[in-house]
Amino acid sequence: MQYSKCKDDYFIYVEKNEKAMLTITQFCESKNIQNGRISGIGAVRNTEIGAYDIVKKKYLKKEFPNVVELVSFEGNITIKNKKPFVHAHVVLSDNDMHTFGGHLFETTIAAVGEFFIRNFEGNAYRDLNEDIGLPCICLENNFGLK
Amino acid sequence: MQYSKCKDDYFIYVEKNEKAMLTITQFCESKNIQNGRISGIGAVRNTEIGAYDIVKKKYLKKEFPNVVELVSFEGNITIKNKKPFVHAHVVLSDNDMHTFGGHLFETTIAAVGEFFIRNFEGNAYRDLNEDIGLPCICLENNFGLK
Amino acid sequence: MQYSKCKDDYFIYVEKNEKAMLTITQFCESKNIQNGRISGIGAVRNTEIGAYDIVKKKYLKKEFPNVVELVSFEGNITIKNKKPFVHAHVVLSDNDMHTFGGHLFETTIAAVGEFFIRNFEGNAYRDLNEDIGLPCICLENNFGLK
Repeated sequence: MQYSKCKDDYFIYVEKNEKAMLTITQFCESKNIQNGRISGIGAVRNTEIGAYDIVKKKYLKKEFPNVVELVSFEGNITIKNKKPFVHAHVVLSDNDMHTFGGHLFETTIAAVGEFFIRNFEGNAYRDLNEDIGLPCICLENNFGLK
Repeated sequence: MQYSKCKDDYFIYVEKNEKAMLTITQFCESKNIQNGRISGIGAVRNTEIGAYDIVKKKYLKKEFPNVVELVSFEGNITIKNKKPFVHAHVVLSDNDMHTFGGHLFETTIAAVGEFFIRNFEGNAYRDLNEDIGLPCICLENNFGLK
Repeated sequence: MQYSKCKDDYFIYVEKNEKAMLTITQFCESKNIQNGRISGIGAVRNTEIGAYDIVKKKYLKKEFPNVVELVSFEGNITIKNKKPFVHAHVVLSDNDMHTFGGHLFETTIAAVGEFFIRNFEGNAYRDLNEDIGLPCICLENNFGLK
């Protein structure tokens, strides 16, 4: 992986054969990036994505071994169990330009992985929300009636 | 809804059962966010999206009552009729990881809604463009031949 | 095209009948935007997208003449052959809200094109990577084992 930093932004190039989520998470740990926004594009393979079943409170999962374009990668970085946690949703497209998408578990870079992280000086963290069944974001301020 | 602010950026967590567009628009009004960029991910239900018919000058609409992943939410905030207006396009994915998308009218958070707003100190506003049939963005400077 | 600038961010409105990639690239040249992040939404026609074949090392291409919603446009700006180069992946949706996507070659604005560029003071450039067969991003720092 290669990177450059400009003020609060990181330009990140995850290289061929690197696992994107693993590499980016390790990078956040190394640079102490605890909160932030992440987005990117690329070409990937061995991708596992999922959809959350809010009744069964578990993810349905699907694997895509083939090389596909990563046409959208959008997510955030928060603290979960005292470590940086990357939460990302993706859209992928195949050679017919058909798309599919979901919650990203892991993907391996097949050609290039071009990402941006915008680092925030916040303390957003995740805590288990039993109603939802997932570690959900907790922020400092409330707005509205909830 | 919960939020935290870091310089010009807001980290926003729209909570289960809240209407995303309504809540975010009210937040922008409350915080006087008149211009900005917005993006996010989540899991939503009761989603109404559309495609603009440029000949008939109206939106074709479709409703998706089921819970789906919000895999991409990208848009902007401008002033329309003297109030903050959120314009967003979305990509949704179902339990088979199939995707569909369009202009977002409204959606309700089914599990989580994780967004970022980047606030600009601008005065971008929308004014009816009769050729297009929509309130279109007006910015300060021109570039190119038009 | 219209634009406004706020610190390091540009709000960009590409107008009807303008070619998005051509116009944005010319804008980057004019404003000396050499590195940055770009994202946006809109309604477009005459769109050519592709998927990269990593074995044959060439793009499979497909044209979509019809008007479609540009539901996600995500990419970056780097220097290639001493000039600003826009690399973007897109997701498009039709009147049935079906989506398709890929690497964007060019598209013409059918109604509106609403983009943001965040300009970085970096020197990210692209150089041919013979293993991949594409001009790939080169950044200042390395992280991890590569």
